[in-house]
Amino acid sequence: MTKPILIVGGGPAGLAAAQSLAAVGRKSVLVEKEERLGGAPILSGYAKLVPTGEWAKDAIGGMVTQVEKAKDVDVHKGVTVKDFAGEPGAFTATLSDGKTVEAEAVVLATGFTHFDSINKPEWGFGTFPDVVTTTQVEQMISSGQGVRCPSDDRKPKRVAILLCVGSRDRQIGREWCSKVCCTVSSNLAMEIREELPDCHVYIYYMDIRTFGLYEDLYYWKSQEEFKVKYIKARIAEVTSDGEKLIVKGEDTLVKRPITIPFDLVVHAVGMDPNVDNMLLSSIFDIELEKHGYLAKGHPYDAFGQTSRPGVFVAGAACGPETIEDSIAQGKAAAIAAISALSGAAAAAAE
Amino acid sequence: MTKPILIVGGGPAGLAAAQSLAAVGRKSVLVEKEERLGGAPILSGYAKLVPTGEWAKDAIGGMVTQVEKAKDVDVHKGVTVKDFAGEPGAFTATLSDGKTVEAEAVVLATGFTHFDSINKPEWGFGTFPDVVTTTQVEQMISSGQGVRCPSDDRKPKRVAILLCVGSRDRQIGREWCSKVCCTVSSNLAMEIREELPDCHVYIYYMDIRTFGLYEDLYYWKSQEEFKVKYIKARIAEVTSDGEKLIVKGEDTLVKRPITIPFDLVVHAVGMDPNVDNMLLSSIFDIELEKHGYLAKGHPYDAFGQTSRPGVFVAGAACGPETIEDSIAQGKAAAIAAISALSGAAAAAAE
Repeated sequence: MTKPILIVGGGPAGLAAAQSLAAVGRKSVLVEKEERLGGAPILSGYAKLVPTGEWAKDAIGGMVTQVEKAKDVDVHKGVTVKDFAGEPGAFTATLSDGKTVEAEAVVLATGFTHFDSINKPEWGFGTFPDVVTTTQVEQMISSGQGVRCPSDDRKPKRVAILLCVGSRDRQIGREWCSKVCCTVSSNLAMEIREELPDCHVYIYYMDIRTFGLYEDLYYWKSQEEFKVKYIKARIAEVTSDGEKLIVKGEDTLVKRPITIPFDLVVHAVGMDPNVDNMLLSSIFDIELEKHGYLAKGHPYDAFGQTSRPGVFVAGAACGPETIEDSIAQGKAAAIAAISALSGAAAAAAE
Repeated sequence: MTKPILIVGGGPAGLAAAQSLAAVGRKSVLVEKEERLGGAPILSGYAKLVPTGEWAKDAIGGMVTQVEKAKDVDVHKGVTVKDFAGEPGAFTATLSDGKTVEAEAVVLATGFTHFDSINKPEWGFGTFPDVVTTTQVEQMISSGQGVRCPSDDRKPKRVAILLCVGSRDRQIGREWCSKVCCTVSSNLAMEIREELPDCHVYIYYMDIRTFGLYEDLYYWKSQEEFKVKYIKARIAEVTSDGEKLIVKGEDTLVKRPITIPFDLVVHAVGMDPNVDNMLLSSIFDIELEKHGYLAKGHPYDAFGQTSRPGVFVAGAACGPETIEDSIAQGKAAAIAAISALSGAAAAAAE
């Protein structure tokens, strides 16, 4: 009898993997450490997603509903994998609730951890209540509350979004780029302008990385239709004059110091390796890449293969990733997991 | 009896789709207009690929071998689809050789067309023999010839790579970003420096978009280990003083005109919509997005769904894409094609 595929993580990549397996008539066991499926877009309360503009609760929520209803997917919420042993085709995972799962292969879709802005204190987070993160602004929008200054609940008249907070920053050990923040911030800036048409929104950037078709869908559209302003700058610090927040830095295009007052300052926080990655590396006996993401090999053959045969990885677990590509990778890794098995079975039959 | 899935295009996305279907025991028919499989990486003679550093002929060539050997994949080379009719579960495609293919669903993996630098005449291509494209330099490397100036076959001492040729350029109707050129150019610059350690390599850029983990693997590595120089500049023109090529522009960081002589100037050419897209749109009765790529819908449910039910799209056919993500998308779209069918079958059975 065919054993199921074990999927660890119920965010976009894990949900997509489960959907794919169900579509080809294969059983899977989905283990999610939180009490709810959906991953960051649901658990962190994202608002409208790039690139479709759908609300996260509809888009990813729809995937959750489909997976929870699928008879071929056995969902375990609020549990983790504590122990893992065996070989491709015959793995055994022990869960934190004591149950065991027999699996032919594994797809790790364990996602990322939002950068904690407290690690960038000179940019005001933790000191000034009106310095918030992109995730907090997503929540203000998705909750229906609207974008407000936390200190006194007023509607901001001037908002600064600071890019690369916890990304491309060697001083704090984050030399990678988080891939999505430029486009997500352009999208968020348009959402703010839509709700508060009198509010001025500035985006401080190093390089604008709205790659591919996002270029005019987000970067140009935000400037031309929504009058969002972009400033190429090196930011020194975020302080306060007692009334307004003050963003100080150097405009790197005109080589002049700039000091601009704002009501609300938003950190576009990066995607850190999941805080659990060391533990996952140990439990599943797989390698991490140099920054601490789960290492993946050869993309041309066994998609998402980790250093351990039969164990695959997809989505932001292996590096900063968009939701759309996490979904593609989840589906691809699930199929690679089956392929590896049919290859192993064929070899065994020879 | 189950009909096969029709795959149009034998590049990375199409090969990946065929591999996925074979892995789950589904038959496919792969139609490729050229006489060889492999798509741009093989047909255009790419050298070492991002991100694995493998030679294209090994990496993508390996996929070609696997697909050509797979008994569940029926490969037709040197033919195109001339006519297409039917409904999901019962499509009929007529090929240019007169054969017909019955298919349950279709995955279009028809790729892109390299931007033709002749459309950017002020940057010297077509006028000066030593102004070449990234594709030509890839070929110089992959053929074993080495990087040489076409005019007299000498080893260049100074090379300029100009980014965004045919990308982010509204004057010539290309407002999108081609997504891969920054990273591909960083990679190519390192390959040039590896072959010619005395050669100075400069990269002219608007924004450096080495997103995600490419940031330190390519952008930082090329600067720190390979001493590649990056200049943020607006390029005015490429001329010649009779001996050297002269790149004239404005350094946008110091706001000063810069005029630098080079032996070889390389256009990092963008990814245009495939020149066949109007025809594909008409034959398959599917919509194009505003730039002329094949339009795709909702990424959360039916991955890569076009405007016509049962017809899916993957890879650079729907916008500039990396090889790695084209592969993931090819696998995902193939599975979405099966899912849509099982959904349709379930609905019909009710």
